[in-house]
Amino acid sequence: MRFDIITVLPALLESPFAHSILQRAQKKGIAEIVVHNLRDYATNKQKSVDDYQYGGGSGMVMSIEPFAACIEKLQAEREYDEIIFMSPDGVTLNQSTANELSIKKNIIILCGHYKGIDQRIRDIFVTREISVGDYVLSGGELPAAIVVDAVVRLIPGVLNDETSALSDSFQGELLDAPVYTRPADWRGNKVPDVLLSGHEAKVNEWRHEQALERTKIRRPDLLE
Amino acid sequence: MRFDIITVLPALLESPFAHSILQRAQKKGIAEIVVHNLRDYATNKQKSVDDYQYGGGSGMVMSIEPFAACIEKLQAEREYDEIIFMSPDGVTLNQSTANELSIKKNIIILCGHYKGIDQRIRDIFVTREISVGDYVLSGGELPAAIVVDAVVRLIPGVLNDETSALSDSFQGELLDAPVYTRPADWRGNKVPDVLLSGHEAKVNEWRHEQALERTKIRRPDLLE
Repeated sequence: MRFDIITVLPALLESPFAHSILQRAQKKGIAEIVVHNLRDYATNKQKSVDDYQYGGGSGMVMSIEPFAACIEKLQAEREYDEIIFMSPDGVTLNQSTANELSIKKNIIILCGHYKGIDQRIRDIFVTREISVGDYVLSGGELPAAIVVDAVVRLIPGVLNDETSALSDSFQGELLDAPVYTRPADWRGNKVPDVLLSGHEAKVNEWRHEQALERTKIRRPDLLE
Repeated sequence: MRFDIITVLPALLESPFAHSILQRAQKKGIAEIVVHNLRDYATNKQKSVDDYQYGGGSGMVMSIEPFAACIEKLQAEREYDEIIFMSPDGVTLNQSTANELSIKKNIIILCGHYKGIDQRIRDIFVTREISVGDYVLSGGELPAAIVVDAVVRLIPGVLNDETSALSDSFQGELLDAPVYTRPADWRGNKVPDVLLSGHEAKVNEWRHEQALERTKIRRPDLLE
């Protein structure tokens, strides 16, 4: 699977893609993540990628031309399944969208900045607009990293058994039960007896009850 | 405002905090973001920060001791308003939580990994559990960066007028209207005439209609 991310801040994405699971997935050859500097595709002398917005108002708008140049160069090299624009007014990312994206082959992600991007980029090129949540961020870079992380970890071979994606929250529609590790007693705060009992059926029953209870209290919407 | 982020992957957070608005906020002395390596607080010889979970099952659980040591060291230095644990089963981050956090002074953020963190850390230390959305990620680092970005940009003095947070999506309860910049005609795709009319009242009316229409179609829940 290949991700091409187009951004004015390529340096911002250096460390998230160079560590942990995303690093491993790239080393194993399972995922390729290429970050493109939008400024390299600026067509004017000033290498500007944004301009004042028509109709007036504060906030610069990212121009169509550099995005179009970068996208069309990539499309000449390979076919893309999706061109995603990270935007607070996109469809909110959830686990089922992540699952769906994890079986695609080539994906372009556009990161917005400033006041937004020229609407024509969205109308002409973008196949899917995704929001990571109802909050405003400085740009689409962290959201792009979130999408890549959520998706890449689902590709078979990326996670080992110890970190298996199958037992994660949201895959089973219940939140996880509380987890504990040593010491069994920390300053008088003890691990629940049942977890120390060695009685597997009781442990499973307790975990299911706890997961159900936690979901009921915290996220009743997941049970509907 | 100060953020202390406790993580096993401090390097992952290097570039997001070193660029753009977060860099500027730190240079201006408005925000201080300190990343702590949890392994520096490991108490055993192997410098391990996780262990098998009680009751069995795959996935390592992060131990209470290193987190407790780091938190208590920080608490001895200053008072903290919040100790936030980034978790998919936390309360979903939204703009009003970001607004609320932006008036705090000192915040600790704990990043989880693997199967999760010992429940006693959450019971004893954590004041608030925040999720950035209903999807599973490799760890709490990107979510922590999201929280810091969403919050810091709201602190007065961080953004200039051009990037003013006040006109953002979600602050006004409507999504943004489409935006356009030069060229007025791109391969036959034209900017709406009204935006070129120079008629401010008509522009404002069009923008309000578009924002309302987009919100109705994409996020009717915001209008309820």
